[in-house]
Amino acid sequence: MNQRTTLKTELNCFEKFSPIVPDNYQDADVLMLGNITPKIQQSIINQMKKRPKLIVMDTMNFWMDTALEDLEETIKMVDVMTINDEEARQLSGEFVLLKAAKKILARGLKYLIIKKGDNGALLFSNDGGIFFAPALILDSVVDPTGAGDSFAGGFSGYIAAKGKTDFETVKAAVIAGSVAGSFCCEKFGTENLQNLTEKDIKERVKRFEEMTKFSF
Amino acid sequence: MNQRTTLKTELNCFEKFSPIVPDNYQDADVLMLGNITPKIQQSIINQMKKRPKLIVMDTMNFWMDTALEDLEETIKMVDVMTINDEEARQLSGEFVLLKAAKKILARGLKYLIIKKGDNGALLFSNDGGIFFAPALILDSVVDPTGAGDSFAGGFSGYIAAKGKTDFETVKAAVIAGSVAGSFCCEKFGTENLQNLTEKDIKERVKRFEEMTKFSF
Repeated sequence: MNQRTTLKTELNCFEKFSPIVPDNYQDADVLMLGNITPKIQQSIINQMKKRPKLIVMDTMNFWMDTALEDLEETIKMVDVMTINDEEARQLSGEFVLLKAAKKILARGLKYLIIKKGDNGALLFSNDGGIFFAPALILDSVVDPTGAGDSFAGGFSGYIAAKGKTDFETVKAAVIAGSVAGSFCCEKFGTENLQNLTEKDIKERVKRFEEMTKFSF
Repeated sequence: MNQRTTLKTELNCFEKFSPIVPDNYQDADVLMLGNITPKIQQSIINQMKKRPKLIVMDTMNFWMDTALEDLEETIKMVDVMTINDEEARQLSGEFVLLKAAKKILARGLKYLIIKKGDNGALLFSNDGGIFFAPALILDSVVDPTGAGDSFAGGFSGYIAAKGKTDFETVKAAVIAGSVAGSFCCEKFGTENLQNLTEKDIKERVKRFEEMTKFSF
C-alpha cells in the first residue's frame, strides 16, 4: 500500500467509530475533546444536552493535513484549543507565535494554548492576555508518552473543580495541566498519576511558583 | 583548503590577537568575557589587578570542538558561564538538562545559565537553585543577531549596578539580560538598545512578571 492508501484506510477506520456519550455525562459543565477526527469531536458536542460552559479540544497536524475543513468547523464550536507551536504555525500560516495565536483566536476561540513540550506552554486569551507556564526541570524523564493528554486532563479538571473560566482561573488551569504532564513523564503510563495525593500536587505547584519568581 | 586547514587558519588568526585591558578597566568588579578563544579569555582574567567579584564567560560549541582543554581551564577560573542547551549537553555528555547543569557546575562555577533562544533561559546555582526566565512574546522579530551578547551585557550590567552576586540578584540579572535580548531582536543591530530609557526597561520587566504570575 502506498502512503495515500494507508491514510485512506486509517480514515475509514474512524468513519466506523461513533462513540456514544453516556446519559450522565451529557450535562457536563466542561467538555474535553481528545485528539481524534474533527467530525467525531463534533458528534460529541452535538450529543450534549446543554452547551457546556467550556469546551476544550486537542488536535494535531494530521487533521490539518487530512481534514482541514472539518477541523475549522470544530474550532468554531469550541472555546479552547491546545496545539503545539509548529501546528500553530501551520494552521495560521504565521511564523511569529503572537501573530499565529491572534489569527487562530480570531476563529472564535476564547483561549489558545500552545504547548512547547519541555519548553513549557503558552496561553493566549482573545482579549490579549498572555501567560507562560515553564516546564518543570525534572530529575529524570522516564517516558513523555501521554504528557499532552495529562496536560489536557489536569487543565480541564481544574476548571471543572473551580467552575470558572476567567483568565486567572485558566492561567492556574495551565499550571494544573503542566503539573499533571510533569508527573506523567516521571514514570511509565499512568503509574505516577494514579498514586498522586493533593499534597504532591501542591508541592509541585509551589515549585512552578518558585521557578519564575524574582524581584527586580 | 579542506575544513581542517580552514579551521587551523582561523585559530591562527586568534593567536595573533592579544587584547590589552586598559588600565582603568583592570579593577572592575564584574568581568564579562565575550565568546572568543578560551586562551584569550584567560589572558583577560590574568590582566586584572584584583580578582573581580564576579567573572562571567560566554562560550560555544566551536571551542568545545577545537580547544576543549583550554576551555575547561577557563571554566575553572570563572563564576558564571552562559551556553545554550545543546552546548550544555555536549559539554556534560548528559541529555537531561538538570544532570548536565549539575555536572558543569561541579567544575567550580557558582552559576550556569542555559540559554534557550525564544524559549527563554534557565539559571542553575551550585547550591541547587533553579530559575526560569521566559522569552517575551514579541510583536515582531526583526533580527535576533546579538541577542546573546545583549543578554550577557544586560546580565553583567545589572550585577555591576547592584554590587551583589546572591541568587536573588542573579535571578533579576537574568531578567535584565532577557529584557536586553528582547529589545535587541526588535530592530537591526544595536539601534533599539541605544535609545532605551529606564522607563522602557521597567515596563518590560513588568511584562516578564505579568507573564508568569498566577494564583492557584
